Amino acid sequence: MERADKGLAFMLQYENVAWYDAGEVRILDRRVYPTKVEFVVCRTHQEVAQAITDMVTQSAGPYTAAAMGMALAAYECRSQTAEAQVKYLEQASYTISHARPTTVARMQIITEGCLAAAKLAIAAGGDVSQAIVDHTVESNNLRYNKIGKMAKYLVDMFPDNGAVMTQCFGETIVGQMLKEAKNRGKNIRLFCPETRPYFQGARLTATVCHDMGFDVTVITDNMPAFVMQKEKIDVFTSAADAICLDGHVVNKVGTFQIAIVAKYMGVPFFVSGAPDKGHPTVDTVKIEMRDPEFVLQAMGVRTACQGVKGYYPSFDITPPHLVSGVVTDAGILSPYDLHRYFDEGNAGEYADQ
Amino acid sequence: MERADKGLAFMLQYENVAWYDAGEVRILDRRVYPTKVEFVVCRTHQEVAQAITDMVTQSAGPYTAAAMGMALAAYECRSQTAEAQVKYLEQASYTISHARPTTVARMQIITEGCLAAAKLAIAAGGDVSQAIVDHTVESNNLRYNKIGKMAKYLVDMFPDNGAVMTQCFGETIVGQMLKEAKNRGKNIRLFCPETRPYFQGARLTATVCHDMGFDVTVITDNMPAFVMQKEKIDVFTSAADAICLDGHVVNKVGTFQIAIVAKYMGVPFFVSGAPDKGHPTVDTVKIEMRDPEFVLQAMGVRTACQGVKGYYPSFDITPPHLVSGVVTDAGILSPYDLHRYFDEGNAGEYADQ
Repeated sequence: MERADKGLAFMLQYENVAWYDAGEVRILDRRVYPTKVEFVVCRTHQEVAQAITDMVTQSAGPYTAAAMGMALAAYECRSQTAEAQVKYLEQASYTISHARPTTVARMQIITEGCLAAAKLAIAAGGDVSQAIVDHTVESNNLRYNKIGKMAKYLVDMFPDNGAVMTQCFGETIVGQMLKEAKNRGKNIRLFCPETRPYFQGARLTATVCHDMGFDVTVITDNMPAFVMQKEKIDVFTSAADAICLDGHVVNKVGTFQIAIVAKYMGVPFFVSGAPDKGHPTVDTVKIEMRDPEFVLQAMGVRTACQGVKGYYPSFDITPPHLVSGVVTDAGILSPYDLHRYFDEGNAGEYADQ
Repeated sequence: MERADKGLAFMLQYENVAWYDAGEVRILDRRVYPTKVEFVVCRTHQEVAQAITDMVTQSAGPYTAAAMGMALAAYECRSQTAEAQVKYLEQASYTISHARPTTVARMQIITEGCLAAAKLAIAAGGDVSQAIVDHTVESNNLRYNKIGKMAKYLVDMFPDNGAVMTQCFGETIVGQMLKEAKNRGKNIRLFCPETRPYFQGARLTATVCHDMGFDVTVITDNMPAFVMQKEKIDVFTSAADAICLDGHVVNKVGTFQIAIVAKYMGVPFFVSGAPDKGHPTVDTVKIEMRDPEFVLQAMGVRTACQGVKGYYPSFDITPPHLVSGVVTDAGILSPYDLHRYFDEGNAGEYADQ
């Protein structure tokens, strides 16, 4: 297999690697990847929700995991009456979509989509788990198609020869972006902040960039300002965990800081993703605070002495005046004009139409 | 011993722990502290220079280590003629002061001070190593006295109840600052970015703050913007590895980025230290680039896959328009008016007068 294709293939594979089969869901454990390739096996939909809470999978991974959790829930209640199955799946939809507080709105689109597919299958007397899996494959294909369009608009913003800084792991979008850049012959060097405390930038983003055949450099999270200036970064880009309709961008902690630095340096910041109808304004966003102890270690080795506190917000919020453009499947929008996306009849990244 | 005193005592002890005795210099290995308390033993002045290059000791530690390296050099050449001893020590002064490219100017003040003390002892036929040790004790006491004054001016800038963000390890200044804050009854919460890739903030700064009895929280290097906004940081403060006379501040990589964020947030940034005559402008600064592989691991565990590059500038440069004030032993100066410090007859942090 050609190297770039291999990179994209395994990236898609790893996003999809939360997969339902015969009463269990296997999820690639991104907490240890790429050092180890291990899987967490879930035998109830509650275990799937817990795996999402525990960040076994991250970025776009939880959305497929959530759908597979719904397929597993359908398996769990398969012997019950039609009415009881619907009730059980409604409860499962709630449990799974609330696994992480910041992403409830997007998760509900996924689990409620699965619920709708399940209801049809229940009414028709079909295999409900299989119906949910089929629905998810179809939805993901639709989403990949939208992301392919985003990638084209995003790469329009890249110079022919230059440097791009990323933040955290946007697997599908990063992969499609690099494929597009490669197809157009753009010679791009990538700089990936390591993204503490989980090192997703060092472990995941950088691995995808390398496997796609690009020149990629990992930096620590205190280096973006130095690197932007010294290495003449042309574009800063990230995905988002939520894009509020008022233009506020919720993404991996650190994004806000790099966006401030980018503004200072005159470097544009493009965020890829569709706006979220579930977040009409930033006031609806709840930032998930995780176990503070996790910040006091690195790769499992303790860094600080006992008695020192930790602090761990998963995400931060970048205000619209620091965002140069939101790269959607319908073109690049001003962060101040995101309603246009829905006004023009687009459905959103995770929606099915 | 009272806890706060214990904290200051061990901090001073650890700064001084590069100590000459009977033909060897023992240096506390700050690369593994506080997890392990280990010492690197040097038996030649070249080994001392190498230990400084290898960052066995950091921040103010190398300056005492350099002086002790000079005492060791005096021991090495003790049987030679007076003329040969002077020549040997001149060569040692060069070797030691050039151990790290960014700090040559300050190092030369130290090693040339030792050289002057040595020449007097050689002429008088005294114990040259002991003369250098005595000179260093005296110089350090002078410096601690100056730092005590800086601490008073710095703490004037703190609120009675509030939050202060630090960057990296300014051991003596941080310790004296906290002692002063405590004496004045100021209720300060401290936030320490961990300072990758060596984790000096998590390992060293936070330990001193904790041992001085303060509420201290370690954050990862991608969190300063979030924390400044959410936890209402009142002041950002750091020491510096060099303060150019044109107001540019050279300090641990990450300082520039936090200074940009502080400016954005309206948080003042105070830098403690005397200006450096050795750097009339920023053009004389050479930023040390260290082994890039070091960025691809954390606490000894590899983070990125093979083939990914690293990048490791030790320091960055903050321009004067991001600096609210330079806190010297002669008061707080505008970064645009640092000549005033010498015009008023002050000698500098590391100078003996």
